[in-house]
Amino acid sequence: MEKTAMRNLCKTYISKGATIVPEHVSKQIIEGYGIRIPEGAVVKTSEEGIKFAEKVGYPMVLKAVSTKILHKMELKGVVLNLRSPEELKISFVEMQNIFSDRKEKLEGFLLEKMAPVGAEFIVGLQNDPHFGPVVMLGTGGVFIHLLEDITFRVLPVTQNDVEEMIGEIKGKILIRGFRGRPPLDEKSFIQALLKIGQLGIDAAGLYESMDFNPLLLTRQETVALDAKIILAKDAMEPSISEEKPNITNMDKLFAPQAVALIGASTTPGKIGNAIADSLINHQFEGQVFPITRGGKKVFGLENFENLRDIPGKVDLAVVVVGLALVPDILDQCHQLGIAAMLIISGGGKELGGEQVVLEQDIQKRSRKYGIRIIGPNCIGCFNARNRFDAFFQVYERMIRPPLGNIAFITQSGTYGCSFLEECAITGASKMISYGNRVDVDEADMIAYLAQDPDTKVIASYVEGLGDGRKFLRAARDVIFKHKKPIVLYKSGRTKRSAEAAQSHTGAYGGTYGVYLGAFKQSGILTVDSYAELVAATKALSMQPSAQGQGISMISNGAGPMVNAIDMFGRYGLEIAELESYSIQEMESHFPDFYICKNPVDVTGSGTSDDYALAMESLIKDPAVHVIMNWFVFQDTPLDEGIVKVLEEINQKSPKPILCGATGGPYTKKMSRAIEEIGVPVLNTAHTWIAAANALVRWGKIQKTL
Amino acid sequence: MEKTAMRNLCKTYISKGATIVPEHVSKQIIEGYGIRIPEGAVVKTSEEGIKFAEKVGYPMVLKAVSTKILHKMELKGVVLNLRSPEELKISFVEMQNIFSDRKEKLEGFLLEKMAPVGAEFIVGLQNDPHFGPVVMLGTGGVFIHLLEDITFRVLPVTQNDVEEMIGEIKGKILIRGFRGRPPLDEKSFIQALLKIGQLGIDAAGLYESMDFNPLLLTRQETVALDAKIILAKDAMEPSISEEKPNITNMDKLFAPQAVALIGASTTPGKIGNAIADSLINHQFEGQVFPITRGGKKVFGLENFENLRDIPGKVDLAVVVVGLALVPDILDQCHQLGIAAMLIISGGGKELGGEQVVLEQDIQKRSRKYGIRIIGPNCIGCFNARNRFDAFFQVYERMIRPPLGNIAFITQSGTYGCSFLEECAITGASKMISYGNRVDVDEADMIAYLAQDPDTKVIASYVEGLGDGRKFLRAARDVIFKHKKPIVLYKSGRTKRSAEAAQSHTGAYGGTYGVYLGAFKQSGILTVDSYAELVAATKALSMQPSAQGQGISMISNGAGPMVNAIDMFGRYGLEIAELESYSIQEMESHFPDFYICKNPVDVTGSGTSDDYALAMESLIKDPAVHVIMNWFVFQDTPLDEGIVKVLEEINQKSPKPILCGATGGPYTKKMSRAIEEIGVPVLNTAHTWIAAANALVRWGKIQKTL
Repeated sequence: MEKTAMRNLCKTYISKGATIVPEHVSKQIIEGYGIRIPEGAVVKTSEEGIKFAEKVGYPMVLKAVSTKILHKMELKGVVLNLRSPEELKISFVEMQNIFSDRKEKLEGFLLEKMAPVGAEFIVGLQNDPHFGPVVMLGTGGVFIHLLEDITFRVLPVTQNDVEEMIGEIKGKILIRGFRGRPPLDEKSFIQALLKIGQLGIDAAGLYESMDFNPLLLTRQETVALDAKIILAKDAMEPSISEEKPNITNMDKLFAPQAVALIGASTTPGKIGNAIADSLINHQFEGQVFPITRGGKKVFGLENFENLRDIPGKVDLAVVVVGLALVPDILDQCHQLGIAAMLIISGGGKELGGEQVVLEQDIQKRSRKYGIRIIGPNCIGCFNARNRFDAFFQVYERMIRPPLGNIAFITQSGTYGCSFLEECAITGASKMISYGNRVDVDEADMIAYLAQDPDTKVIASYVEGLGDGRKFLRAARDVIFKHKKPIVLYKSGRTKRSAEAAQSHTGAYGGTYGVYLGAFKQSGILTVDSYAELVAATKALSMQPSAQGQGISMISNGAGPMVNAIDMFGRYGLEIAELESYSIQEMESHFPDFYICKNPVDVTGSGTSDDYALAMESLIKDPAVHVIMNWFVFQDTPLDEGIVKVLEEINQKSPKPILCGATGGPYTKKMSRAIEEIGVPVLNTAHTWIAAANALVRWGKIQKTL
Repeated sequence: MEKTAMRNLCKTYISKGATIVPEHVSKQIIEGYGIRIPEGAVVKTSEEGIKFAEKVGYPMVLKAVSTKILHKMELKGVVLNLRSPEELKISFVEMQNIFSDRKEKLEGFLLEKMAPVGAEFIVGLQNDPHFGPVVMLGTGGVFIHLLEDITFRVLPVTQNDVEEMIGEIKGKILIRGFRGRPPLDEKSFIQALLKIGQLGIDAAGLYESMDFNPLLLTRQETVALDAKIILAKDAMEPSISEEKPNITNMDKLFAPQAVALIGASTTPGKIGNAIADSLINHQFEGQVFPITRGGKKVFGLENFENLRDIPGKVDLAVVVVGLALVPDILDQCHQLGIAAMLIISGGGKELGGEQVVLEQDIQKRSRKYGIRIIGPNCIGCFNARNRFDAFFQVYERMIRPPLGNIAFITQSGTYGCSFLEECAITGASKMISYGNRVDVDEADMIAYLAQDPDTKVIASYVEGLGDGRKFLRAARDVIFKHKKPIVLYKSGRTKRSAEAAQSHTGAYGGTYGVYLGAFKQSGILTVDSYAELVAATKALSMQPSAQGQGISMISNGAGPMVNAIDMFGRYGLEIAELESYSIQEMESHFPDFYICKNPVDVTGSGTSDDYALAMESLIKDPAVHVIMNWFVFQDTPLDEGIVKVLEEINQKSPKPILCGATGGPYTKKMSRAIEEIGVPVLNTAHTWIAAANALVRWGKIQKTL
């Protein structure tokens, strides 16, 4: 069955109000896509069944046919391993009896030749709310919810994607010679996954989800033993987003020459006052026009009653007044040729109800007028080059970092504030807290940063994406064309209740698994906490990428190295196996009680010269790809010459150097001094390793650029 | 078969050089312990087999009998589902042929009635190097390495332990009505686990590990379908440690009146100089006697050539000289009546070889003389009450905290330093970095802290325990008798290679799983990073425990709350479902755009009064057990009155309050101010939740006290 016939067939079932396509029809569909199914036939009576069984051979499997049954197994609608006409007959009668009492009508019997022994996987398709059609691969038939050994990709998938998926699941060990058995037919498995992927694209708009469970992999072939197609409520044309990022006029948001502040206030503590302070009293050199009722000057600047009273051209309107006023303000902006707006005010769709409609109105006008909007419900943006920001976080409470190469886009203003302060030494290029994303979205922002010469690394905190496909397309452009890494922390991962979903795949749809697969597929580096996000970003900003996964460590206190090694497995990092000459070099210089293999322990007696010698040895060693120093600065023998040592070695080392230290004021002072010369210092073993991992992963991606 | 017969039988096999007990004998052993096994017989020929099969009924399972085969399945030594005399005969011949080419001798055939359908689990016993006999429960027969759904307990186990084990594995869903099926016979399963536990105790010293895999659970019974006993190389008497903690003379280590510093130095930067500085020039008011070659005064104090030259009584010898000198020094101490020694020097067993022997010598003399030793290879101990420490971390580099109620015992000096500085506001009671643990071990230390009136909470960083059972016994005493919580971070978790182990249970022996089970069983609260350790300890030190798992959150920035909720599942925490009157109270006072359900979002406009009102509402709400505030201190509307608000509410609230904030200098200043009034402020969402989790778990344990 080819695409058109398949779509027509699905549409017919949808129009009849069917929830699912009957199994034997589903199997015809996938057979049409070149996927093997068991020999089978739909029969009405046991006599017909026995005839068919004699043709294809016992043992057989008997299944109930119905367009209403979602979980046949639970309803006793499946009997396996029927070995004779007698057994077959008994099962026919039993199944008829069982279903005679049920509301689900029995529409016939599907009789199939029992499959040989093999490894069972689940492959599923899901119409994801953010990414559209996605494919899932998981291990283990009914045990999927115990194993939770699954991975997703956004469709379409390439052979490389499919191979990566197989490589990611633990169940791969079942394929490649499990417990001494011969390997299974992985090639046919890859082909089957690609074909199911094609079906997922071709059937877009017509299905909610599909389960091929189990997809049986034997030594000779891959067979779909079951196929469940859960239909969409209404048939739709394929709705796969083709949206492209739009960066028109975004310069006005980041580098405005003249800013109108609508809702400026003279009352200290008010948001409109704090923003006025940030714009007027500090580093921003553009023009500022406060707008508010009542004639008082704002920090010495003339106050305007209305946008149209402002003399000269305004680039950007910053809005702090109630959201209900925004539609009118947009009309005015359009008349006055103001092309960009930053809406700090909240009270939009996060409150639900009428406010959702209000935001839709704002969006409509923004699109109609071509006025670019960031917000509402955000803290706005920061440009380190022209020192523009409209933050209601006053300077006394929040550091504005110097110009650096890190950009941060964040759905959380809280992390926006924190991140800027984390960049006090490294510097930042831009920061955007984008809130409800009524116009400018994540994709637009990264597309803008892709061409921003100040930005080398993009960090991102995301709770949920708008148009996932648009974002992935933009991200691939940033990474593979502009060669800038994106590090992303996705929060809001809680799994939605599996019971509510109609398919196994559906139970995992909308979860972090889908996002994770999509990010991997697009070259985005993911992390699992905000602290890791900061660490990974700093490392990518300050250090070269790693040319392999060989980690070396040096410390005058072993504890954090022990912690770090605990995490190697999770990340696929390795303790570099040193060449004997590296070890000998250290042994010939160090006291007997130093430990001269990797990780190197220079003990509490370690000095800056000891670290220098160890680092020099490790940099020369071909097995080493990352040099990691942990410092116990509290230990008196470790002299402050370490800063100079690091500065010199960092300048000439082609391999990345990452440091770690934890402690009080003195440790923090030393850590700052080292960051100032360009080497990151992380303060937990977890973030130290997360930073290394980012450099290793980025190194791997760079090799493909 | 009862205990003596079982032990004699095992000893016979061991003396014959057998690796394993043959399966049918293993099954006789467990049948003797009251565990059901399939009907079976060992037969020599197919004729015998057919006779037996006719007696018990088909289908049958045929298994090879051998004392050499570890993994029958891989070697084709198992054939399932033989349904007729013909099939049985064929399999006999095939198996004979297969084994005729093998080095493993076929000693007979075990023929068993094929088991009915049920859920498969693995239960194992392991002779753990730290804890002695332990029991493992896991899900899923051969899939155990895919599922890794396992849990351990130290033997003996109570019914409560066994029920907790079942509750911890995901596979429990197979027992309690999986996918609509009737529930299985959990009662018989619990009994079988208890009986296997008894076997594990009775057979101690004779086995390396045992696998009961699968242990089949059906609707009617629990049956051990396979039983593999891997014997110890040499038969030993039960070696279950009965050691008790020894706190004799430990006061001399923590509260010495007079200290001899053996290896004092006048050279700045040397460890012996730094320690002299810490002892002489700062807060310690006891007497100090520097000992070193060469007559120079040390920081103005008279220097001695030898211990015996010191006038008057010495309580404690602090040793910084080479370890080789220590045996002699111990002899001298014994002669001089010095009962305690702190060995800072490294160069002991961590280097292997001869140094191991040297440490054994030191240990022998310590035991013989009754001299208590901390170290070697450590930074020593700190007592906040008398301000004693012998740290080579000078005051300029490391804060000594004020007196507080937190004690920290740590195998890592690095974390010892860091932890003291983390306690700069909360204070600490004692800290011990114990290094190689030649005498005083973890158990002695927590037993000492149990009766220390200054200590309320014990934090511990552990890489590996010495005598695990001694520690657990001491920990239970601390927790259940002295009612002090122990929070523990165990590092060094990397799994040892599963391939090397001879049993499935063995593959997980010595891993973190064993430690985790042991800690749970003993009421120890575990965490997964050093940062979490600090957070959990602070919370327990400063706040009351929680009377339930209902969490409430308030913030003027939602991001960290979203992160926090991601972690609720992992910890079993719940978002408290507020009473409608709590919501109404907030709604009647707050602006429309605040979100007045849990988590409460007072938005960027939130003031200290807003937090006060929300907290008051939540404290009154019966569903709420923990009040969690996240602050974006950078947001200008949040006034500094928040400190006073928290002080007042904290004084009267019976429910714990935990705060969080992340940012630069202003945020840190505010965080400090809040910690000073007794409310912890964590700086990541992860540690904020880890702190809450500790209070919830401690609350649960307290209810059992």
